[in-house]
Amino acid sequence: LFNTNNIKSVLRAFVTEYETPKIVAIHSWSIAITCRIVQILILLYTILYVLGYQKGYQQVDQSIISSVILKVKGIGTGYDEKPVTSIMDNADYIIPSQENSALFIMTNYIRTDQQRAKCTEGITVDGAKCLSNDNCMKDSDTIKRNGRWTGICRKSKNSSSIVDNSSSLSMGLCELEGWCPVENDLVRPEAIRDVLNFTIFIKNFIEFPKFNITRSNILRDATYSKYCIWNSLTDDLCPIFRVKNILEIVETDADERQKMLAYGGVIRIKIDWNCNLDRPLSECIPKYTLGRLDSRYRVEQFSFGFNFRFASHWKYYNKTYYQSYRTLTKAFGLRFIITVTGQAGKFNFLTLTLNIGSMIGVLGLATFICDMVALNCGQKGNVYRREKFQTVDLRKRIEQLRRSSE
Amino acid sequence: LFNTNNIKSVLRAFVTEYETPKIVAIHSWSIAITCRIVQILILLYTILYVLGYQKGYQQVDQSIISSVILKVKGIGTGYDEKPVTSIMDNADYIIPSQENSALFIMTNYIRTDQQRAKCTEGITVDGAKCLSNDNCMKDSDTIKRNGRWTGICRKSKNSSSIVDNSSSLSMGLCELEGWCPVENDLVRPEAIRDVLNFTIFIKNFIEFPKFNITRSNILRDATYSKYCIWNSLTDDLCPIFRVKNILEIVETDADERQKMLAYGGVIRIKIDWNCNLDRPLSECIPKYTLGRLDSRYRVEQFSFGFNFRFASHWKYYNKTYYQSYRTLTKAFGLRFIITVTGQAGKFNFLTLTLNIGSMIGVLGLATFICDMVALNCGQKGNVYRREKFQTVDLRKRIEQLRRSSE
Amino acid sequence: LFNTNNIKSVLRAFVTEYETPKIVAIHSWSIAITCRIVQILILLYTILYVLGYQKGYQQVDQSIISSVILKVKGIGTGYDEKPVTSIMDNADYIIPSQENSALFIMTNYIRTDQQRAKCTEGITVDGAKCLSNDNCMKDSDTIKRNGRWTGICRKSKNSSSIVDNSSSLSMGLCELEGWCPVENDLVRPEAIRDVLNFTIFIKNFIEFPKFNITRSNILRDATYSKYCIWNSLTDDLCPIFRVKNILEIVETDADERQKMLAYGGVIRIKIDWNCNLDRPLSECIPKYTLGRLDSRYRVEQFSFGFNFRFASHWKYYNKTYYQSYRTLTKAFGLRFIITVTGQAGKFNFLTLTLNIGSMIGVLGLATFICDMVALNCGQKGNVYRREKFQTVDLRKRIEQLRRSSE
Repeated sequence: LFNTNNIKSVLRAFVTEYETPKIVAIHSWSIAITCRIVQILILLYTILYVLGYQKGYQQVDQSIISSVILKVKGIGTGYDEKPVTSIMDNADYIIPSQENSALFIMTNYIRTDQQRAKCTEGITVDGAKCLSNDNCMKDSDTIKRNGRWTGICRKSKNSSSIVDNSSSLSMGLCELEGWCPVENDLVRPEAIRDVLNFTIFIKNFIEFPKFNITRSNILRDATYSKYCIWNSLTDDLCPIFRVKNILEIVETDADERQKMLAYGGVIRIKIDWNCNLDRPLSECIPKYTLGRLDSRYRVEQFSFGFNFRFASHWKYYNKTYYQSYRTLTKAFGLRFIITVTGQAGKFNFLTLTLNIGSMIGVLGLATFICDMVALNCGQKGNVYRREKFQTVDLRKRIEQLRRSSE
Repeated sequence: LFNTNNIKSVLRAFVTEYETPKIVAIHSWSIAITCRIVQILILLYTILYVLGYQKGYQQVDQSIISSVILKVKGIGTGYDEKPVTSIMDNADYIIPSQENSALFIMTNYIRTDQQRAKCTEGITVDGAKCLSNDNCMKDSDTIKRNGRWTGICRKSKNSSSIVDNSSSLSMGLCELEGWCPVENDLVRPEAIRDVLNFTIFIKNFIEFPKFNITRSNILRDATYSKYCIWNSLTDDLCPIFRVKNILEIVETDADERQKMLAYGGVIRIKIDWNCNLDRPLSECIPKYTLGRLDSRYRVEQFSFGFNFRFASHWKYYNKTYYQSYRTLTKAFGLRFIITVTGQAGKFNFLTLTLNIGSMIGVLGLATFICDMVALNCGQKGNVYRREKFQTVDLRKRIEQLRRSSE
Repeated sequence: LFNTNNIKSVLRAFVTEYETPKIVAIHSWSIAITCRIVQILILLYTILYVLGYQKGYQQVDQSIISSVILKVKGIGTGYDEKPVTSIMDNADYIIPSQENSALFIMTNYIRTDQQRAKCTEGITVDGAKCLSNDNCMKDSDTIKRNGRWTGICRKSKNSSSIVDNSSSLSMGLCELEGWCPVENDLVRPEAIRDVLNFTIFIKNFIEFPKFNITRSNILRDATYSKYCIWNSLTDDLCPIFRVKNILEIVETDADERQKMLAYGGVIRIKIDWNCNLDRPLSECIPKYTLGRLDSRYRVEQFSFGFNFRFASHWKYYNKTYYQSYRTLTKAFGLRFIITVTGQAGKFNFLTLTLNIGSMIGVLGLATFICDMVALNCGQKGNVYRREKFQTVDLRKRIEQLRRSSE
């Protein structure tokens, strides 16, 4: 098989012989038209849908890199501290002062000045009401408590202002060791005024690393970008959002909006970059979508709104030692989470050839289907089959040869 | 070539002629069975593996968007401040008070009340021990120092309590300008008690933007989601984790767990959403995986555990000016990093056709392999080859014609 | 069609008949060589580019999971507080004390001790200068103000130290209610000294979830990783970066670098993991790329540098009530955003077969092109066409049969 002559002839054939499949052309209107329709449908699907609509000639990069910087402006008014009204600027209501792709604006709060001491547990805590020390077990489920229980049931009216509110004067409250006095969750002050007028400036840098493309969402001149307010219809490229507009988009119910300000809420600002890099880069622009992530108050029974606690600490010389103080703040507010998604497509010869190759495979399927129809339907099918298939049966031939030689 | 008649005949042929490759059917048990096996294997691979197991009919979206909100509950006890025990609630041990997809629970700390002054450097700092001012160079590598060195070597025993611990009384310590007194890293208090009983509530919202699907990890009713504790076997959909359980899963060695509480550690909570959107959305559920990211203490020689420093600042009127104070805390603790991964698959005609097209191409490979076998093996191969190949050699024919006409 | 005999014969044919397309082999140097070249080009493209260069045999995972921990070391010197120089350690200049994949190093600041009171607005605020109370409207655009305006125009020279600087003595400034005194933005202290010598240690854990591969960027022994300084040429795997080197890479202009320290800037540290998992895992190493994200000062007219405000709060007993104090800091500084990208490729039989299948489809295209050439060019084309196409026209045959039988 592999002697020199063989290889020589194979090589000669390789450069002198052109091989092409032999085709049987069957004259038949019905079959031909059926087949052409199937082939044309596949071709149209390939050209219009795969290559046209789905951009099958583009390589797609979905791994967008993003960094987001947020700035809030506005002055609010809180209600807690007498005698001075609590005017709040952004160093007061943004906690923490800076995050990468998120922002918390405090819209309501319960503030408690505390020091480390012993005092009575909050009246709203499960099992805090007691008749005797036996009711104040140290070790039972401590998760919801405000401090470590000492095992004592305090009954004195004057021990805590919270006890005074208690309707059952004969009952006491368990004593705890920790930060005192405990936060009074029953007091729910009004939301900070003017939050709705705050503006949020979003600066977003993105990169498609595969194509080495970087973009920013500041697309127009400085004057515009400084004074515009985002609006989905007229100013959809403005990077400044008014809290009021955001709330009205994510929640149509005015009562729910009030509750979001009072008890907090989670809002998602999605920045979507869908870029066709075969077109000018200036058409690669962001699309902002706003949505509410937390459940509505009327639906939700569990994990209500959005709140967390933080504290500022200081110490004060107390004749004998430095006493620790803290101002505990239970902050309710709007948590904005900025998510950046996107994909970029760019012409890529590899993707194009792989897709075309696949679709040629599918075109082969058309011939297969047509053969099934042509060869199996009606009496003509048998004729066509005899023409299409050229049977080679060596045994039969040998027998025929034997017979003819006999 | 392009005259009217030609185009007419081509068009007529296009609708009246159906073209199908002529097939040579070779009667041979051995070759046929070999080929059928190859073809059936490729078909099975396509249907069972490509389309069945690998879901080749689905478009896959890997660009999951996620936002995570974390809440910790529990009361711990620290050891630092006398005369009052340091009861710590979540405003004390969570630093910063809020992060997007991460959480730090302080489990141990070194706390130092400081003010801006001049004092001696810590005894553990390289080169801090001195015999004369010459040992306290201002400008040499300052990276590890606690402040700016003044160039003075302080020898007085009373200048700093740290010096008293020094075995070599004749030696002094370099003086620094900065926050005084410096933190004493040698004091390693015990870990905060009861950290193991803390619970972490994870609220996770995800979205697959391509399919416009949003899901939350709160999948069951409020009562269940409020009181359950996650367990990989019985409660694998509960969103509340106990720190003790987490530690036991990520680290089997009890001694390592103790060291993680004392010196800190990094724990990854992975939430994996693997959703088949062709099935009911209720089957699109998260899978929690826990793992330790920092190296084990017995292996690691460098960048031990997890700690960082933070400070609370205040001022105090000091007869002539407001003196700055701060409480510096070196916080050791568990850093939880929540990573959300996932992919969603959904039936997509484009993906299906591209994959089928590819596999038809592979089927063509089967015929190629079979031809190699059939045409090259044995003497019958030459017969088959003559039947398969119909040679067209115009030169030979012309010669034959010439000869016959002669 | 579906009777027992038919099925039997089809099944017998299935295992006894091997079907292969009949090939017309045309002897022609020119056509053969053209075709071979087309085929060889497609084969080379498939083998060298698709499978070789583009690694078409690998499944690619782009969904990298990453967690980054950052540590900064260094002692800086600020200029604000007299009589003591402000030595600043990392608890002072890193705000917030800890972030997941980001870091802010304060390089300059304006610090103001404030309490809640009434005072005059800052002279730089639009519309703050007034001649009468009518100039100080409460309700007009309040976004840029430092507090809530009371509607009073304060003219007394002694009311605020800022008024003294005002050139127009006859003019007053509007009174506001809020944190007093307001921040004086005109004072721009020098940048904190020695920031350039700070070092940033980056600890990066990554995972490719599809392949279950985890890696860390600490690749060499502890001694090296502890004392090295990153350098793009000699120490490109060192995880410690000096701020000076980073600045020099992202910004070549020394004046711009000075401005970045004074007014802030945003720097991106990209860690790129491009891993070929068919090779040893030790070759899966990170590549650090540094870049500046904010616009250069000479270009930018809007949203200059990078700054934000934060405050430390405390209270002080003021004979009748606890007075709130805060130290407001407007922090200018370098914001480092660490982005981790990457992809891992691993041999995957499915990907390989799909790609090969596609390329076989493309090879089929070669035959189509060659046929177009061979059958349409020149007079020989008609001969070849007659050989390639075997026409089956039942009507003609029936007519022929009729004629011959006549």
